[in-house]
Amino acid sequence: MSFELTKSCPLTGARAGMLTTHHGVVPTPAFIPVGSQATVKSLTPQEFSALGTNIVLGNTYHLYLRPGIAVIEKLGGLHRFMSWSGPLLTDSGGYQVLSLAHLRRVSDEGVRFRSHIDGSEHFITPELSIQFQEALGADIMMTFDECPPYTDDHNAVQEAVERTHRWAERCQRSRQRVDQALYGIVQGGAFVELRRHSANFLTSSGFDGYAIGGLSIGEPKQVTYSIVEETVSLLPEDKPRYLMGVGSPEDLVAGVSMGIDIFDSALPTRIARNGGFFTRNGRKIIRNAHFRDRDNPMDEGCDCYTCQNFSAAYIHHLFRCEELLAYRLATIHNLRFIMRLMEEMRRNITDGSFPSFKDSFLASYRPTDEAVRLSQREKGMKWRGKKSGIDASNGDA
Amino acid sequence: MSFELTKSCPLTGARAGMLTTHHGVVPTPAFIPVGSQATVKSLTPQEFSALGTNIVLGNTYHLYLRPGIAVIEKLGGLHRFMSWSGPLLTDSGGYQVLSLAHLRRVSDEGVRFRSHIDGSEHFITPELSIQFQEALGADIMMTFDECPPYTDDHNAVQEAVERTHRWAERCQRSRQRVDQALYGIVQGGAFVELRRHSANFLTSSGFDGYAIGGLSIGEPKQVTYSIVEETVSLLPEDKPRYLMGVGSPEDLVAGVSMGIDIFDSALPTRIARNGGFFTRNGRKIIRNAHFRDRDNPMDEGCDCYTCQNFSAAYIHHLFRCEELLAYRLATIHNLRFIMRLMEEMRRNITDGSFPSFKDSFLASYRPTDEAVRLSQREKGMKWRGKKSGIDASNGDA
Repeated sequence: MSFELTKSCPLTGARAGMLTTHHGVVPTPAFIPVGSQATVKSLTPQEFSALGTNIVLGNTYHLYLRPGIAVIEKLGGLHRFMSWSGPLLTDSGGYQVLSLAHLRRVSDEGVRFRSHIDGSEHFITPELSIQFQEALGADIMMTFDECPPYTDDHNAVQEAVERTHRWAERCQRSRQRVDQALYGIVQGGAFVELRRHSANFLTSSGFDGYAIGGLSIGEPKQVTYSIVEETVSLLPEDKPRYLMGVGSPEDLVAGVSMGIDIFDSALPTRIARNGGFFTRNGRKIIRNAHFRDRDNPMDEGCDCYTCQNFSAAYIHHLFRCEELLAYRLATIHNLRFIMRLMEEMRRNITDGSFPSFKDSFLASYRPTDEAVRLSQREKGMKWRGKKSGIDASNGDA
Repeated sequence: MSFELTKSCPLTGARAGMLTTHHGVVPTPAFIPVGSQATVKSLTPQEFSALGTNIVLGNTYHLYLRPGIAVIEKLGGLHRFMSWSGPLLTDSGGYQVLSLAHLRRVSDEGVRFRSHIDGSEHFITPELSIQFQEALGADIMMTFDECPPYTDDHNAVQEAVERTHRWAERCQRSRQRVDQALYGIVQGGAFVELRRHSANFLTSSGFDGYAIGGLSIGEPKQVTYSIVEETVSLLPEDKPRYLMGVGSPEDLVAGVSMGIDIFDSALPTRIARNGGFFTRNGRKIIRNAHFRDRDNPMDEGCDCYTCQNFSAAYIHHLFRCEELLAYRLATIHNLRFIMRLMEEMRRNITDGSFPSFKDSFLASYRPTDEAVRLSQREKGMKWRGKKSGIDASNGDA
């Protein structure tokens, strides 16, 4: 496992690199599609690979509940279970236990909770999270962390940060395998000095990479950006930096510009299942009536299978009829849009034109209105209780 | 448009042929996957083509309601709309109007009904059905027919047969295009002499092919088989014979054996979405708990993408989590199973070994229990009212 920086942008913080894992090389900056339940919703591995995916995320919390870690271990690990031979990252389950599970009780020992699926009681500790992640066998594991809500006050966030640090050390100490990387997760909410404290603590403990967690959970974008900027400046140059839960096009460009190497988010695929198509000018909503007889593709000039083969009118029809193919064609487009964006940024960093690419991208991309974004975010939160593979975030968080 | 018989089985009625259309050649016996709403549920055209599909079915009733015939015509016809350049057949809408729509009133003029989607009132006549099918532009059109329920008495069925004949003649007379084939549909319920009457009437009117309609709608299998046998004996040798709505493996083998060339049915794809996997020994139900950690594919030796790449345990997990990929992987398998069965039968007819193939297939294939079959059939009927692309037969009838 190694990370090599190949180029840095002299005007911004942007950097291009190569992350080498036992299952292949990931060119950075990289976006990781979310496959929480061992599937990138609606797509086959053949398909998401063809879209440019180099690494996929699985989720310890979801896989622990279904099908159970022992089942996947018995079947040869997560790679083999989902038939994906490329690099894999597993999230520790910390975030999901606190955002999805019911009746959570956090103690220093770990988190007691009830499953959001059947109400059964469980207890996960940092040691168990690592044991589970070693059994799953992903190339990159994450430390078990406590991500407090954005609305928590300084004292509560500070407590969560200190616990996250103790848990990170326990994760390190409990490792049995040496062929997996372990990344630490910086917490600290919107409090700059807690973020600094967390970054300093974790970097002194020596992890294989550093994630920034606890962002993109409802706070205004300016807060996200300033916390990322502050935190990145304290992370070592020679280790990968991973911004968790960020995946809107404008945030990916901003994140890369600040020196982030890796991102993951369910946003592109979830938005797709709700009929939102990324274009260079912003999101288009396929259900709008004016697409009813629109012969053009949703995104002119896009090289994806969807845009190369189907009119907006056809996809509008599929969404109106709630046809399964609808969700898939939209997912293909959005994921390809994001992968192409990452490829373009990498190319622009390498040939020195990233600053002008960034300016021109942000000049033409109209982000979704902040109010709409926050209300959709809340809708997403509510969906988590619902059981549906289509418009709910059933296992995509 | 032509049909050429290439080989007949000397011991059974089975025959192999080539059906030539403007969009390609269809080797027969052929199975037509159902794409009522301009999509074979969950699959792309690229995908169902790779499974061995040579011809697809669209439905006039569904497409008339959504997106509307004018929309598809404006966008260049059904082929272009759904991005399928191969042969297409459209059903006339007769069966769907009578089985799906609400408040139907049949008169000699046509059928007045309310949409099963929004309750809006519509009126379709034989002339309008042909006008719609010409606008859709399929290679093969079907006459607008009246399919009475299996429970109707002799008088009611006789009335429906006579009306079907008058409508068939009106369909013929109203044609404007010459580049599409038109098939007549034999009706007559379970009454042999009505079937004979219908077959004689339609064949004397001269259609490009002959369908047997009004079967597989709840009657016992022995009735289906004897009616098919009687009817086929009255159809001309040199025209294609199409058994509508039949698609279980054992029925396909029986139908081919009796001299049927073409079949369509939503069964293989609907069963798939409900977790039923065809194998040479019968159907397997993926939700059964014993598949939870089964490492083998669902159907050993199957050449489909699903069986080549995924364990039963993985697919069991996807179904349990209601993941979109579940429905797709199951559909891929069942459709490939059916297509391979058709390919095998064609090969066996051609090399003279069909009778022994038939015997050995039927000896090892355990059909779904008759009682289960009829109760599942009823469940399917009920689902028609539900709005869901997954387990409902939303637009697959």
